[in-house]
Amino acid sequence: MNKGLFITIEGGEGAGKTSLLAELAHKLRVKGKQVVTTREPGGIPIAERIRGIILDKANIGMDARTEALLYAAARRQHLADKVVPALAEGKIVLCDRFVDSSLAYQGYARGLGVEEVWAINRFAIQDAMPDLTLYMDIRPEVGLARIRQAGERELNRLDLESVSFHRKVREGYLSLLEREPDRIVRIDAEQEPGKVLEDAISLIERRFAGFFATDVKL
Amino acid sequence: MNKGLFITIEGGEGAGKTSLLAELAHKLRVKGKQVVTTREPGGIPIAERIRGIILDKANIGMDARTEALLYAAARRQHLADKVVPALAEGKIVLCDRFVDSSLAYQGYARGLGVEEVWAINRFAIQDAMPDLTLYMDIRPEVGLARIRQAGERELNRLDLESVSFHRKVREGYLSLLEREPDRIVRIDAEQEPGKVLEDAISLIERRFAGFFATDVKL
Repeated sequence: MNKGLFITIEGGEGAGKTSLLAELAHKLRVKGKQVVTTREPGGIPIAERIRGIILDKANIGMDARTEALLYAAARRQHLADKVVPALAEGKIVLCDRFVDSSLAYQGYARGLGVEEVWAINRFAIQDAMPDLTLYMDIRPEVGLARIRQAGERELNRLDLESVSFHRKVREGYLSLLEREPDRIVRIDAEQEPGKVLEDAISLIERRFAGFFATDVKL
Repeated sequence: MNKGLFITIEGGEGAGKTSLLAELAHKLRVKGKQVVTTREPGGIPIAERIRGIILDKANIGMDARTEALLYAAARRQHLADKVVPALAEGKIVLCDRFVDSSLAYQGYARGLGVEEVWAINRFAIQDAMPDLTLYMDIRPEVGLARIRQAGERELNRLDLESVSFHRKVREGYLSLLEREPDRIVRIDAEQEPGKVLEDAISLIERRFAGFFATDVKL
């Protein structure tokens, strides 16, 4: 049914997901491929409104399970409105974070349980699972130091308590990798950017031979 | 853990849930019982905002699964903020509609699948299932005629297509009743109101002996 290809990029803070996604999209576009780059909520109005509730500081009393259900709801709408139609048109969809983020952050690190968070996401996603997931692995100390250096975020979310949380996130990702080695591949995100891109391309090529070859339009 | 008692009232349109709930609450309060009457989203701000997204006419493109996840999210927050604290204080909570509505309407009648809708609601509810559920059974033609007569709703939602939808809702409720006979009890809602109340009281008393007896405060 899917004529396109659905690739997600996952990883902790400061792993370099956004850069890698942009570079891969560029590499593919110069070869004539039709690429859609996105991230949840992806500009989908209903999903944006759901995310607005999650992020609203007035909602500090939000239960962790309410939050997980809202993320799954926003994911469903983004998938239905943007990802599935693009795949049906044969496009390559590169998505910055997807279900594995919920599993690692909420299921594993927040302690809701991976199986439980899977249950609601299975309902949201059905069979629209990524064809391939690139997990950008980085030690939290290194990733957080990168962000601190780049001045991209406020420092108060990156205190010592957060480091221990981000360690759990990484453990979560690594356990997902072990569980689904056919779908998720690991990239050493502590390497310099050129090497990261090279690894990503070679991992994708190994899975989908000729992926970066030039598309010939007849 | 629950010191209180959680009773939900379910049924199709025009079954008389609201009236029965008010009458039961009155009967219990005159006996000195502490009763909380509620219905989702129950005035819980986060749940109200979620419901606002579901009901907003601008969101006509909402996917049925997004909607089901949003209902589950609102249910979770209402449960956490209002129902669970009241039960912990030993109160009787009477709730107009709960998880069975999602199962009958979305799982069964809308065709999302009862098991699938159960999966996300199990995540939302955990172990906070009702101690007893009163299912007010009425043929859709009778219930819809009552509403039409009372002029409570717009007629356009009650056209012929709706009758067939409401028949499916009823089938859904009846299959839930068959599946969980220990939790769900059927009340013939086509009887005159006095008889409905009488049946409800006797069904509750059969389950919880002395429930309508006067509370003696020492």
